[in-house]
Amino acid sequence: MPHIDLPPLPGIAGLLAGYPQTAGPLNSLAETLLRGPSPLTPAQRETIAAYVSGRNECAFCARTHDAVARRLRRDDGSGSSSAETDPLMVALLAVADKVRVDGRSVTAEDVAQARAAGADDRTVHDTVLIAAAFSMFNRYVDGLDTLTPTDPSAYDRHAQALAEHGYVRPPV
Amino acid sequence: MPHIDLPPLPGIAGLLAGYPQTAGPLNSLAETLLRGPSPLTPAQRETIAAYVSGRNECAFCARTHDAVARRLRRDDGSGSSSAETDPLMVALLAVADKVRVDGRSVTAEDVAQARAAGADDRTVHDTVLIAAAFSMFNRYVDGLDTLTPTDPSAYDRHAQALAEHGYVRPPV
Repeated sequence: MPHIDLPPLPGIAGLLAGYPQTAGPLNSLAETLLRGPSPLTPAQRETIAAYVSGRNECAFCARTHDAVARRLRRDDGSGSSSAETDPLMVALLAVADKVRVDGRSVTAEDVAQARAAGADDRTVHDTVLIAAAFSMFNRYVDGLDTLTPTDPSAYDRHAQALAEHGYVRPPV
Repeated sequence: MPHIDLPPLPGIAGLLAGYPQTAGPLNSLAETLLRGPSPLTPAQRETIAAYVSGRNECAFCARTHDAVARRLRRDDGSGSSSAETDPLMVALLAVADKVRVDGRSVTAEDVAQARAAGADDRTVHDTVLIAAAFSMFNRYVDGLDTLTPTDPSAYDRHAQALAEHGYVRPPV
């Protein structure tokens, strides 16, 4: 049961519905980071978000963003295994994992490896900020003990909406 | 030296100036969380931000928000030692510290202690989200190895601007 009274919606959805004032900037940050202009595709950015959430053991965020990433990779034809084999993604996930633990642990060598695999400044920036932002979203979701659905179809439905519409819903 | 090319401004200021697209939602989140409507005063919220940043050993964020909190406490007459002695702040900082480490470590007992000291749902929510948000800001600032001024007067000047104007500057 969540630590505070919330609408009966899973994970961050309950928080965004119950606290619309902070939902605005949070949705806007997610949309800009994961769907706005970037050298990284939305699929690559969702993969970083899912990876960080998984390593932080935030079940709701990890399952949601993993489902979104898989759907986007399928749609853009990049394939389901790109994260494990693409040298750029391997280097970026290594940077993201260090940011997740402690920003100070990222070394010039980590960044040089990402650059050698094709990352430019903006790629490094976006990777660090996505990893930092999910260090926030994961703590927000778990710190208030929000609902974590066990039914996989709940994540699939949510992922479909996020893959199609992103994080700032079009006006009704 | 920062890991990416940035305007020569300290801490997050270089990131916000160099990456204006993400600066919008980040500033908006900080303004809403630290200055928007809340049962907590801006001084109390800046105290939570400074505490989390200090525990994360993010020198730039800790020194900046500590200076802002001291200035706001002086202005609102709450005194410099309120954070150490006020039972509500003691309970909220305990929750914030748990969120900082791992959201899942916050217990119903931690929240009950905060409620016994006067916290309502919104107070608990805002505390958790401030702690989560600074878990992001600290990682963003340190993960890109931004500049950390050593001159205390740099923090005082910055703190004065943040205490007076908040995080979304009025249109020029």
